[in-house]
Amino acid sequence: MYICKVQGKCVSTIKDEHLKGCSLITMQRLNKTKGPVGEMLVAVDTIGCSVGETVLVTRGSGARAVLGAESPADMVVVGIVDTYDCN
Amino acid sequence: MYICKVQGKCVSTIKDEHLKGCSLITMQRLNKTKGPVGEMLVAVDTIGCSVGETVLVTRGSGARAVLGAESPADMVVVGIVDTYDCN
Amino acid sequence: MYICKVQGKCVSTIKDEHLKGCSLITMQRLNKTKGPVGEMLVAVDTIGCSVGETVLVTRGSGARAVLGAESPADMVVVGIVDTYDCN
Amino acid sequence: MYICKVQGKCVSTIKDEHLKGCSLITMQRLNKTKGPVGEMLVAVDTIGCSVGETVLVTRGSGARAVLGAESPADMVVVGIVDTYDCN
Amino acid sequence: MYICKVQGKCVSTIKDEHLKGCSLITMQRLNKTKGPVGEMLVAVDTIGCSVGETVLVTRGSGARAVLGAESPADMVVVGIVDTYDCN
Repeated sequence: MYICKVQGKCVSTIKDEHLKGCSLITMQRLNKTKGPVGEMLVAVDTIGCSVGETVLVTRGSGARAVLGAESPADMVVVGIVDTYDCN
Repeated sequence: MYICKVQGKCVSTIKDEHLKGCSLITMQRLNKTKGPVGEMLVAVDTIGCSVGETVLVTRGSGARAVLGAESPADMVVVGIVDTYDCN
Repeated sequence: MYICKVQGKCVSTIKDEHLKGCSLITMQRLNKTKGPVGEMLVAVDTIGCSVGETVLVTRGSGARAVLGAESPADMVVVGIVDTYDCN
Repeated sequence: MYICKVQGKCVSTIKDEHLKGCSLITMQRLNKTKGPVGEMLVAVDTIGCSVGETVLVTRGSGARAVLGAESPADMVVVGIVDTYDCN
Repeated sequence: MYICKVQGKCVSTIKDEHLKGCSLITMQRLNKTKGPVGEMLVAVDTIGCSVGETVLVTRGSGARAVLGAESPADMVVVGIVDTYDCN
């Protein structure tokens, strides 16, 4: 999984029916020293996180385990991170 | 998921039967500052997007959730992005 | 999916039974300006392409949708590209 | 799979129900010369490893083969590495 | 798939039950000019290859098609490469 920082929202009116009602957030991965790294990513938020929060994100079929097999999502927020260390 | 900019078309007459009738678009990912980044990618467009539009793209088994299990596609457009921010 | 240029063959006599009879090609991805980019990749060719041709390649479970669930292939050629543009 | 060094813990109180009770570790991949490389990753630890240990990590649907199909995890520790060489 | 060079062994006594009895090899991808590239990877060897040999490796669910759905492996050797060219 990735630890990411929620950095914004993505609004899409015309979208796949199985994404209707899903909140889409933009984010970047965080590295060992808690700085943003890598390119912007988009995930479905099922936890109710806010911009600025640090979250745990899963990818691929793990994402669809959360939302159901008919969901096309390939990234989902699966937790709000209280703390992490990486030395 | 990725936010991408539609940049062109891919035409393939000889192709897998489960891709017949599918519109194939070329695209690049967009970064936080709305610039293109990374290598060219190809997706099946089920939404009806046009060149120059910003779209939401899913990958892997999520793509096949949209097109059906027999589809070989590994990238599919699942939405047209109205707006996004990433700060 | 990726657009790739077929660059050669891979010969493997001792291989998984579900790859027996499969033609294995080597390739590189093509970028927006039609130049090769990234590392060498290997795919199963089910279309009958030749060295020098431009092809459409799918990855992961999409590849096994073409060859069958028991195939171990994770990359398959799913089309010969007539033309593509990416501006 | 990857060989990784366990470098810390990730604490997440608000998380997906299928991650409840799972121990989340932070880690980095190790390279041929046993140095850390690449970005920080997070895995579910089912083996009981400790910070500083070298572990074997699997990704994607392989991770869910360990934890069950309803688990959203996409990275799981599947072994403690005694030794490895890579010349 | 990747073409890789077998570069060593990984020994793990404490590991997932479905990896018991599996031979774990370390490797690096080979590029067009037959040189090692990218980071060290680990695969399950079902073919019986030796250090120094050139092998064909599959990833993700393709790997589990070889070892069975309960296997957590995400990389498996599926062939010994006799020759390859990539021009």
